[in-house]
Amino acid sequence: MRRVLVVGVGCGHPDQVTVQAVRALDEADALLVVRKEGREALAAERQAIIDRHRTAGPLPTVALEDPHRPWRTDPDYDAAVARWQEQRAERWGRAIADAVPDGGAALFLAWGDPSLYESTLSIVREIDARGDVPIEIEVIPGVSALHALTARHAVPLNRVGRPVLVSPARLLTDGLPDGNDDVVLMLDVHGALASIPADGIDVYWGAYLGTDDELLVSGPLADVRDRIAELREEAAARKGWMFDIALLRRRVDGAAW
Amino acid sequence: MRRVLVVGVGCGHPDQVTVQAVRALDEADALLVVRKEGREALAAERQAIIDRHRTAGPLPTVALEDPHRPWRTDPDYDAAVARWQEQRAERWGRAIADAVPDGGAALFLAWGDPSLYESTLSIVREIDARGDVPIEIEVIPGVSALHALTARHAVPLNRVGRPVLVSPARLLTDGLPDGNDDVVLMLDVHGALASIPADGIDVYWGAYLGTDDELLVSGPLADVRDRIAELREEAAARKGWMFDIALLRRRVDGAAW
Repeated sequence: MRRVLVVGVGCGHPDQVTVQAVRALDEADALLVVRKEGREALAAERQAIIDRHRTAGPLPTVALEDPHRPWRTDPDYDAAVARWQEQRAERWGRAIADAVPDGGAALFLAWGDPSLYESTLSIVREIDARGDVPIEIEVIPGVSALHALTARHAVPLNRVGRPVLVSPARLLTDGLPDGNDDVVLMLDVHGALASIPADGIDVYWGAYLGTDDELLVSGPLADVRDRIAELREEAAARKGWMFDIALLRRRVDGAAW
Repeated sequence: MRRVLVVGVGCGHPDQVTVQAVRALDEADALLVVRKEGREALAAERQAIIDRHRTAGPLPTVALEDPHRPWRTDPDYDAAVARWQEQRAERWGRAIADAVPDGGAALFLAWGDPSLYESTLSIVREIDARGDVPIEIEVIPGVSALHALTARHAVPLNRVGRPVLVSPARLLTDGLPDGNDDVVLMLDVHGALASIPADGIDVYWGAYLGTDDELLVSGPLADVRDRIAELREEAAARKGWMFDIALLRRRVDGAAW
């Protein structure tokens, strides 16, 4: 049996890791990192967290290859996805068995919290379900982008007695759904924020939260979104990657913070 | 000018505080605690976090009185709430000015993250808006109950490409809203979970997450909710307070984690 530690390490501020997470870094026998093209800078930031907080000596790193996800145009897409997931779980499981001794611990680091728009935990659950490499999963929660964003703007996420919707950007292109006046927009790959109906909506936006490159903009969406689009484009070109997030808030009479 | 640090300290596990939060504990000149009847045990847990992580010596504690919130039956409820908020901001501001030297830092601790169903940040913003006690607000994000819950169940909060709704329990008595198949139920004062339409819904429930008293239950809502109701009642009676949270997930064909 091997432990698999899936540890949230916050959103970029090097001290936005919990004491619990720091202990997990020390318990690990190997760090597993999924290699993604164009994400080399992120691998360096991950290593910086290890270097800063681990006291138990050097930690071997094992690179995992992520087989290419099937194309949506595949004639049998569902079967292709199932095969892809199977193959990935099989490879990763083997990598864990090779890198970590029986009784030891494999470490995955997740940006933000491992449960929110992050695939590592799902894949680790697939390894567990296969059963050929017996593992025990342990998740150490982290500060998610939701809370990193509201902290930097010093605003509540919800209003009193009201719900909050957290959504991929592509589901919000027609605007905030009825009844959802406080909406967090994530995974905005295609810049949906630039074209959402903006009337009566305020935005709190941030990118590279907590880092030296942090960008923050807030105000009426109609007034500030061109500025956000410019900042996004410029920063993504310069850094090679972009993590951003926005809280959209419909102005509602009498709604209290 | 005084700094006001609003610091998330996680959901009960004593090491679920970030390194950034630990630094904030050390920078504080006084801890401000809102006195609430029946919540004495929580004050002790807060003190335990200070004792465990602060290295800068004893921290004076200042108790704040929270004026009684107006009754909904007040003939002029809105005006009464406005007066109540005003009075509270004025009192708290004065307490900060008395307890903390100019240039110093007042500390508020929030369970979970300060932005989620937590009133401290809103009140501090009201103090800032009044302006008679000039302050600079600094929010240190924490691990919210959302992520403490999913970590202990080792499940993702969202499914691939799908939204998550976070909602007060009283808005969910008729069931999950249309289009929301992954819903976090919070603030369940009246035990709404016991009567929500349960067909096709799985639940991941937890209370006192990360503590020695932790309770975890998961399964089809229809099968496990009587057990949850019993555990809630028994634990609330024994401990005198109850923080719990549930993730409700509608079974949907083909929805992937």
